[in-house]
Amino acid sequence: MPSPTSLALPHVAAMHAYTPGLQPTEPGWVKLNTNECPYPPSPRAAAAILAELADGGEKLRLYPNPRATPLRQLVAKLHGHGLTEANVLIGNGSDDVLNLLVRVFGGPDAPTSFTLPSYSLYPVLVAIQDGRSLPVPFDRSMKLPIDALAATPARACFLTSPNAPTGIGFSNTEIAGLLARFPGVLVLDETYAPFARENAVALLAAHPRLVITRSLSKAQGLAGLRVGYCLANPEVIDLLDRVRDSYNVNRLSQAAAHAALTDGGYYDAIIGKIVRTRDYWFGELTQARGWFTYESQANFLFTEPKNAKGERGPAVAKSLYDFFVSRRILVRAFPNHPLTASFLRISIGTDEDMAAVDAAIDAWLAA
Amino acid sequence: MPSPTSLALPHVAAMHAYTPGLQPTEPGWVKLNTNECPYPPSPRAAAAILAELADGGEKLRLYPNPRATPLRQLVAKLHGHGLTEANVLIGNGSDDVLNLLVRVFGGPDAPTSFTLPSYSLYPVLVAIQDGRSLPVPFDRSMKLPIDALAATPARACFLTSPNAPTGIGFSNTEIAGLLARFPGVLVLDETYAPFARENAVALLAAHPRLVITRSLSKAQGLAGLRVGYCLANPEVIDLLDRVRDSYNVNRLSQAAAHAALTDGGYYDAIIGKIVRTRDYWFGELTQARGWFTYESQANFLFTEPKNAKGERGPAVAKSLYDFFVSRRILVRAFPNHPLTASFLRISIGTDEDMAAVDAAIDAWLAA
Repeated sequence: MPSPTSLALPHVAAMHAYTPGLQPTEPGWVKLNTNECPYPPSPRAAAAILAELADGGEKLRLYPNPRATPLRQLVAKLHGHGLTEANVLIGNGSDDVLNLLVRVFGGPDAPTSFTLPSYSLYPVLVAIQDGRSLPVPFDRSMKLPIDALAATPARACFLTSPNAPTGIGFSNTEIAGLLARFPGVLVLDETYAPFARENAVALLAAHPRLVITRSLSKAQGLAGLRVGYCLANPEVIDLLDRVRDSYNVNRLSQAAAHAALTDGGYYDAIIGKIVRTRDYWFGELTQARGWFTYESQANFLFTEPKNAKGERGPAVAKSLYDFFVSRRILVRAFPNHPLTASFLRISIGTDEDMAAVDAAIDAWLAA
Repeated sequence: MPSPTSLALPHVAAMHAYTPGLQPTEPGWVKLNTNECPYPPSPRAAAAILAELADGGEKLRLYPNPRATPLRQLVAKLHGHGLTEANVLIGNGSDDVLNLLVRVFGGPDAPTSFTLPSYSLYPVLVAIQDGRSLPVPFDRSMKLPIDALAATPARACFLTSPNAPTGIGFSNTEIAGLLARFPGVLVLDETYAPFARENAVALLAAHPRLVITRSLSKAQGLAGLRVGYCLANPEVIDLLDRVRDSYNVNRLSQAAAHAALTDGGYYDAIIGKIVRTRDYWFGELTQARGWFTYESQANFLFTEPKNAKGERGPAVAKSLYDFFVSRRILVRAFPNHPLTASFLRISIGTDEDMAAVDAAIDAWLAA
């Protein structure tokens, strides 16, 4: 009889899983490796979960709303621009939405493009689908390669803006320019848009091929609950709903996300604080330390460390990464691409977290 | 420029979504249509969620354990038979696991078989994958069609045991007999096994091509949290992990499921109560009413109503279904298959729920 592996589809048997950032289970880490929010979510999130637990959790026995309808309605209303429930789909994290998009628009005969470097989940999702990946390289300027993106035969293009891991944001002028020339579906992954100067929601009305994805894991501080969404033309939402799991978002996450999103004032304050912290440390890294750092519109900084001798490069970045780990500070390294291997990505933490990073850098330079 | 629909993969543009059971948002329904547990989950579930919400929900900002490792370990330990963490994968509901199984083993050149009638999600998952479905019909006896299942060229076969919507359980002798003759992966969907006389976990050690899926939505009363799992050979688990979303199960669901599963005594009691209620009403329907009803090993009864004139058939079933709705009782009808169209599936509820069903039947017969 055949082995299970010999029965698996060949492309699955040949592929590797996506490697998520380390999620240490023991306390005591300064955790700046997966761009989580350093502040707790709105207290309304926990309150909504408590309300859902009334009568000893009796409601947990019931399936959740299969379409997360109240959350779709609220998201549409909050974004304005004439959006309605028909323009929104809720995912079990935005990764769920990205996966659905690849399942609708990507395959062996429908190639998928994305920039390199970018969110490294995209090629994995394409590989799971046995699709064809068309990576489009940045150069060190990290300017949007519109000509190259428009020239691919991709059916769908995944673009992160602000980009990861650089933090560079692309303007609506650039996005509209790409849409004018690229005839496929443009998935604009706006996971980090709450920290940016601009977002592309206003472009949706005129561009039925534009899909915007969002996450509640970063600005809203709800990574533990797995909620994300996309905004798109109703035709796209209908296609995604066909391939979506009927009960993809659980009851507590729906309730908490809904409550959190009503607390705009709370989030304006913490997003403002994160942006100020980011901009302060951008100045410190670039001016005080003289480290090349991309100007970030996200909740992290992508910086190229220089050691005490003024050297930079992959070995220097690794040296600082390891030194951080020895001080129980986790950041993210991207050693597998020449444009990223000399850099570290540091999520913006609390003032205390950032002071710990700063002190660690001093100690590393003095070591 | 092309429309979004014209850019979608042809098989997605042509398909229909799975239709889940109605989930009314207003209270006051006797809800016996989606086989939820009529009793609340173990109080340990809500307590674990409360613990996870300490400090105003501060932990919600952190990603969950990407592999749900503690839950994998506990599930392995509870099932015994030498299983370890390497034999377990946790899903965002068992539907998530079923979807992953189709993505690993099903496609245009790797057909997927399942019985008809059975869980109607299977053909939808195959359609999403652009796979080929090989339905194998039951006859009215609902005996396992081993010869026909063994004779298909399926790469994977999905079999629900106890089956839905009939409730009929298949013995380990039958399962082992099928495994001896069918050379593909046998996915045994044991969603309803906690209510059955037997389950197939003991067969796993000798059968690397056997995969057992389980749900916490029925016996454990946690449908709202979306937790399911599969038990399989480590090779299969490794393949599934490659196509699984890294953070598929959220933080609160992991914690609550773990806590609930430690409360075996609580669940023994409610499962025993559900089984006794089921067996009592099986007697009432078959003996007192004279309605043909399959002998169920699940938490529902599949019964063929007879009206006051002694007639049965699709119109009679629909008449009772509609009458139930008029009394705010929801059950499930399956009008699209000749073997199911004359039947209604009634989830086992509390004694009060079942008395409401009984009174409604009396009123329908007297109307």
